[in-house]
Amino acid sequence: MTATSEGGFLGHTSAPYSNMVGPFGGVTAATVLRAVLDDPRCSAPPLSLTVNFAGPVAEGPFTIDARPVRTNRSTQHWMLTLSQDDSVATTATVVCGARRPTWSDTEISPPAAPPAESVEVADPPDFPVWMRNYEMRFVEGGGPLSGQPREQPDSTTTLWVRDTPARPLDFLAVTALSDIFIPRVMVRAGRMVAASTVSLTVYFHADAAPLAGHGDRPVLATARAQHFGGGFFDQSAHLWGADGTPLTTTHQLVYFKD
Amino acid sequence: MTATSEGGFLGHTSAPYSNMVGPFGGVTAATVLRAVLDDPRCSAPPLSLTVNFAGPVAEGPFTIDARPVRTNRSTQHWMLTLSQDDSVATTATVVCGARRPTWSDTEISPPAAPPAESVEVADPPDFPVWMRNYEMRFVEGGGPLSGQPREQPDSTTTLWVRDTPARPLDFLAVTALSDIFIPRVMVRAGRMVAASTVSLTVYFHADAAPLAGHGDRPVLATARAQHFGGGFFDQSAHLWGADGTPLTTTHQLVYFKD
Repeated sequence: MTATSEGGFLGHTSAPYSNMVGPFGGVTAATVLRAVLDDPRCSAPPLSLTVNFAGPVAEGPFTIDARPVRTNRSTQHWMLTLSQDDSVATTATVVCGARRPTWSDTEISPPAAPPAESVEVADPPDFPVWMRNYEMRFVEGGGPLSGQPREQPDSTTTLWVRDTPARPLDFLAVTALSDIFIPRVMVRAGRMVAASTVSLTVYFHADAAPLAGHGDRPVLATARAQHFGGGFFDQSAHLWGADGTPLTTTHQLVYFKD
Repeated sequence: MTATSEGGFLGHTSAPYSNMVGPFGGVTAATVLRAVLDDPRCSAPPLSLTVNFAGPVAEGPFTIDARPVRTNRSTQHWMLTLSQDDSVATTATVVCGARRPTWSDTEISPPAAPPAESVEVADPPDFPVWMRNYEMRFVEGGGPLSGQPREQPDSTTTLWVRDTPARPLDFLAVTALSDIFIPRVMVRAGRMVAASTVSLTVYFHADAAPLAGHGDRPVLATARAQHFGGGFFDQSAHLWGADGTPLTTTHQLVYFKD
């Protein structure tokens, strides 16, 4: 991405990250976040991100408009749009803020999983191509793209995952990884189903230093749906570091067509 | 609220909904949603809402600017700000869209709870005053505002709740109810702790007709934190109709000072 003005960026989609229609949503979310983190006005690391997928992003150039609408002593609030040909394709809000040492506790636990190195790396499907950028080791519920072609009573997917080629974690990497899961409706149905994320929210629980310190080890990712109906379902997911540290909790609402 | 222009509204805070600082966040969220639903350009009922609390809202007038930035055949995407004296106090995005009959399933279950009528109504505290607008029957983990003045190993709160005076459910009511829970850190600590919501997301699972059909019966609401640390925690919550129908799933990131 190239800065074209204060808060204005020009970018271009990347063919290796193509999804069914347009780019992998995790990369769109990371691109929006990058516009904030690269902006000289950005005052603190990200706390939360919400991205709404308003329309398909076509292969080609796009512009991002990023506005810090309120900067406080401890938090900064951004509003963003990603547009193509003057049509808004993505809206987003980002909240940045400094973490301080406080009492800490994690109430939920990582899912049961054998060590990453003992789980076979899945052979990525030919389509969608974005999956070739991730090394996935499925522990549970991989769905039809990972050789699980049958209905399941539960939509849970758990996998060890990292970028390939491997690279250390940062805020952009965990943002994209927060959208790594194939649509839950496919896991339930055991077959391909048309589906696309409507809205994605990521809460960041780890700061830049622990993310960098995690290095390029695989992350333990788990997701499940809560309710399907009326053409939509929601998904809640967690990303855990190799040592059991919570990295992100993330939620999305997804359109599906059965 | 009064419409002052296309997408422009003038409102005023309501003293009975005051919180520690400014209004109860659930009412701010409902107010933002109302600006969308009252707009003649609104094409469909709400699917999801994210509200970021950028700064305190002072008692007095405020303006809302609501823009439908993308309208598709099936979804409509809005961006909003709520401002006082030209300073943005709240940002929000809303996605609207029509639900269609599809395969439906709910993977999670309502929390165990006795029938609402068998649970005693809690005596609302003197402060914050907004709680006097809700009839709360605590099943588990009411925290320091409901006579539970001790530390807890788990932040879960479950309660039956409805507006008082009672009124039928609608999108605005379930939005406000999605923020009904006192901060999870208070439940864990068993005492008052300074805390305020940074970002709130609501996914709507029930349409207008089933909400109206629910009438004014109490809703079963349950919330828990997932991770506390660095001065922030996240909360995931579910609202269930009296018959066990999922109404909303809702998530928030909250600042706290210990």
